[in-house]
Amino acid sequence: MKKIILASRSVDRSELLKRAKIPFEIIFSNIEEEYYKRIISNPYQLVKELAKAKVLDVKQRLFQKKEDALIIAADTIVELKGKILGKANNKEQAFQILNKLSNNSHNLITGFAITDVIGPKLVCGYDQTIVYFSNITEREINQYIESDEWMGRAGAYSIRDKAALFIDSIEGSFSNVIGLPLNKIFKVLKKEFNLNLLEL
Amino acid sequence: MKKIILASRSVDRSELLKRAKIPFEIIFSNIEEEYYKRIISNPYQLVKELAKAKVLDVKQRLFQKKEDALIIAADTIVELKGKILGKANNKEQAFQILNKLSNNSHNLITGFAITDVIGPKLVCGYDQTIVYFSNITEREINQYIESDEWMGRAGAYSIRDKAALFIDSIEGSFSNVIGLPLNKIFKVLKKEFNLNLLEL
Repeated sequence: MKKIILASRSVDRSELLKRAKIPFEIIFSNIEEEYYKRIISNPYQLVKELAKAKVLDVKQRLFQKKEDALIIAADTIVELKGKILGKANNKEQAFQILNKLSNNSHNLITGFAITDVIGPKLVCGYDQTIVYFSNITEREINQYIESDEWMGRAGAYSIRDKAALFIDSIEGSFSNVIGLPLNKIFKVLKKEFNLNLLEL
Repeated sequence: MKKIILASRSVDRSELLKRAKIPFEIIFSNIEEEYYKRIISNPYQLVKELAKAKVLDVKQRLFQKKEDALIIAADTIVELKGKILGKANNKEQAFQILNKLSNNSHNLITGFAITDVIGPKLVCGYDQTIVYFSNITEREINQYIESDEWMGRAGAYSIRDKAALFIDSIEGSFSNVIGLPLNKIFKVLKKEFNLNLLEL
């Protein structure tokens, strides 16, 4: 069995794979995300290019070690009316982002890329989920921000945690909204890499 | 602060509350679920009546002890073309249920009931989420069933676990699909019980 490498620091992505009982190891990629964000304004292109850069970075390092493995990376952003909302750097930014999401719907887009170390194949794609937020008051946003859930998360919230209180409904992939579109990845691995995640 | 009691054996419901950082205790209700299932065929009415029976059972016991608390109970079923699909009792039933869900959409309905021990108020409601399953092969269903995830779960699957691989998309409440519609419960508690879950 080929090893699966998740090239991501996201605890949410790791948990998705763990709960699906998929064995994997984590290797962090080391790319200049800001560079891509400056030059690509299309949200779909951005997440795919970021995911691609992440897998290629890890692939290069493993190739030097001559270790074969399947590498998966992803990048998630929130898009609201054509604008990309990233992660908040501080509480003020978290407040501003959540205030925009309140009483509104946004699009949560995850780009993913999959490659193996030995071999030229690289497949990338994306999935998206529309998220409908309730009308939350400024006081509620401030109460939420105290929980620190906003830190390190696209759109400054975590649907799996306290922010579940604010979310009326979603439309689209369930696992994507947590950070990794498992259904699409399952299909790509079967079709393109001859790997069935149910057989691990 | 009034204690919150979750009248449910569901690990998924407990985890939802834990992850939302809501302090609570668990007291199991002890009702004859089969009785309700025999006499009520409407899925929405059934889940509400079951949730109501569960909170009232726990309420009665706590009332004797003169302990005030807020009690929350819920019941989840899967509805497919007007028919209720419950939990599977064995692998064969799990296979039959999953085979019906494959390449199809179903409705996941959770009824909930909330009451406090001292006081007559009892509020109940429901939320629903449409779940779209991929086309899964008989072989894949059998591989899935080996994981034992089907046990004790409405529709014989757990969206948070391996079944995430099979689910193309959902439409509706995110937390409801796990077992408890937190957004609706948050609103009911604020409006009807003067309790703000963000302030706990």
